[in-house]
Amino acid sequence: MIDLRELLASIAAPAPDGESAARRHLDSLTKPPGSLGRLEELAVRLAILSGGAPSVVRPVIFTFAADHGVVAEGVSAYPQVVTAQMVENFMRGGAAVNVLAQQAGARVVVADFGVASPLGRSPDLVACPLGPGTANIAAGPAMSRALAIRAIEAGARLAAEAIDAGADLLATGEMGIGNTTAASAITAVITGAPAEQVTGRGTGVDDATLARKIAVVRRALEVNRPDPRDGVDVLAKVGGFEIGGLVGVILAGAARRVPVALDGFIAGAAALLAVTLAPASRHALFASHRSAERGHARALEHLGLAPYLDLGLRLGEGTGAALFVHLARAAALVWSEMATFKSAGVSSSEGASTAPSEASPEKRIAPAKPALEQP
Amino acid sequence: MIDLRELLASIAAPAPDGESAARRHLDSLTKPPGSLGRLEELAVRLAILSGGAPSVVRPVIFTFAADHGVVAEGVSAYPQVVTAQMVENFMRGGAAVNVLAQQAGARVVVADFGVASPLGRSPDLVACPLGPGTANIAAGPAMSRALAIRAIEAGARLAAEAIDAGADLLATGEMGIGNTTAASAITAVITGAPAEQVTGRGTGVDDATLARKIAVVRRALEVNRPDPRDGVDVLAKVGGFEIGGLVGVILAGAARRVPVALDGFIAGAAALLAVTLAPASRHALFASHRSAERGHARALEHLGLAPYLDLGLRLGEGTGAALFVHLARAAALVWSEMATFKSAGVSSSEGASTAPSEASPEKRIAPAKPALEQP
Repeated sequence: MIDLRELLASIAAPAPDGESAARRHLDSLTKPPGSLGRLEELAVRLAILSGGAPSVVRPVIFTFAADHGVVAEGVSAYPQVVTAQMVENFMRGGAAVNVLAQQAGARVVVADFGVASPLGRSPDLVACPLGPGTANIAAGPAMSRALAIRAIEAGARLAAEAIDAGADLLATGEMGIGNTTAASAITAVITGAPAEQVTGRGTGVDDATLARKIAVVRRALEVNRPDPRDGVDVLAKVGGFEIGGLVGVILAGAARRVPVALDGFIAGAAALLAVTLAPASRHALFASHRSAERGHARALEHLGLAPYLDLGLRLGEGTGAALFVHLARAAALVWSEMATFKSAGVSSSEGASTAPSEASPEKRIAPAKPALEQP
Repeated sequence: MIDLRELLASIAAPAPDGESAARRHLDSLTKPPGSLGRLEELAVRLAILSGGAPSVVRPVIFTFAADHGVVAEGVSAYPQVVTAQMVENFMRGGAAVNVLAQQAGARVVVADFGVASPLGRSPDLVACPLGPGTANIAAGPAMSRALAIRAIEAGARLAAEAIDAGADLLATGEMGIGNTTAASAITAVITGAPAEQVTGRGTGVDDATLARKIAVVRRALEVNRPDPRDGVDVLAKVGGFEIGGLVGVILAGAARRVPVALDGFIAGAAALLAVTLAPASRHALFASHRSAERGHARALEHLGLAPYLDLGLRLGEGTGAALFVHLARAAALVWSEMATFKSAGVSSSEGASTAPSEASPEKRIAPAKPALEQP
């Protein structure tokens, strides 16, 4: 079992002195210094976080599903049953996240955090149901504070199990008809932005539905008055079960110094909550992409994260994070597999040539990633 | 043998009527329409080009190397011998493009188009040497018109051989100390931009060298007066052997309807030349990324191409194109592997649920990619 207070207490910022050593290593490789741009920045951040050579061999995408009582307000283009239907689709491997995760060599952990409609049995579906969806946030809190804590702890437990099994990159994904409404409410509370700036079209609602959705977000904030300094309060009042699970994934990754690739808008809302609870968790966060969903850019700005991809994605599920896995792995491979100027006998920019060494033991100067340890 | 005139005559724009069928297919898949953003646009373009289901199974990166007489003007941070040293590094697999190509499952074809320094023997190095580097463009033409045509034809031949062997995505890469100076001159001629707007720091030159480089580009244009309407003339006067080879790769890809992933600034210059020679070749071009090199954005704008990645890369070799392979493959896999709303029994946005069909023959409604044919 994971206790939230203990988990939060175990999260600390990585030592800052890793940065210059990481840059020195990258500058020793056969390329002009800095010429791989953000791939190098990514490698540096991964190295600082883990305290060793970055490694992206066993990524795991957590696609958590739950329903949202707020759909009663007519805020989505799809009926609530689609949450369950898509979970079934995940289990059969037919969804976008399945296809993109398989391409990226990532395992997908699909968990039911509270889907309202009946789900078929599947041995691979992880059962963490906290109820038949949340209550309608336009009328009252989404869930009790106790349930919010249970959601976070359940997500953290799944992440910790994956890390114990060797996961070296965690990625967030979700499915929940209505969850962009909850994410908009969270983003508005934490960033202080007005509802209309952080409420978008989700799966693709029309103008009338968007206007209704903005009004619903406003009402949810008025009715519930969540405390922006208390992530658990915000989660309980205007969040969702699957969002709580993702907060747990983020916190567990940060505690264990395993990078967490955020997917899109919903993941950004979970990250806003996580950083409220443990500011140092920010060091473990990587913004895979900038979603087309209005409000995501505002969330990333608040988190101080620059996205790596900007492809107009707005699907969720973990699809953007799956695409980011390739970039993170590229950064790790550049770090570990490239020749150095010295080993390859390539002249540096000062014009001094070095004869190639026969044995080239310098080719891999970085230590192998240490076995994952408990924080 | 490939004849440039015949090659140019074989390049035609794909039929435009493929677009609506491609979008219909993507909209039948279990995701809100358009929610995969530019991945969908990429899939549509790939489908229109090939006339069938996109496929990125056997990508080939062409990393062409040559030297540039203009280095005598002191325009680079690295000595000329680095071109040969990096070719040796490519053959040993220690360069960034090797690492990123291997990750992407891409074969790298390294060809010597005219490296000045002696190269070690390697059975994998393709020999297409057109001379010990080009002449100094600040003093006269880089090469004769006949050599420029030979460079294009040689690149086209290598690309055609790769396509015959099953390549379904071609990517451009290059190595040549001094070649950003040639690419700047080409970009200035074709786009009409002044030298200072399209001349950047290349591998990382200081302010004084940048100022000299800009002056050299201006001088090259004044001395040679290349004809912007004639890509062969521009290539001969201010280009490079490896750039000519890449023009050939682009034209061969366009002729055979095989997508060509452009890497960075040098590839952009080659594309400007190719489009001058055969405007319809533009349909085969995909801008992998926006390089940090000043001038690349201007080239892409002229080509009407929006880059897929923006990571501040400025290495060349084909590294950005290698990263793009993952996105192109993702687009192809989404097209071919995702379930449809009908096959998965997922309700569409109209709210109508369809029972899952037992056999799900609709799952792959698109025809398999036809065998590659001669144009």
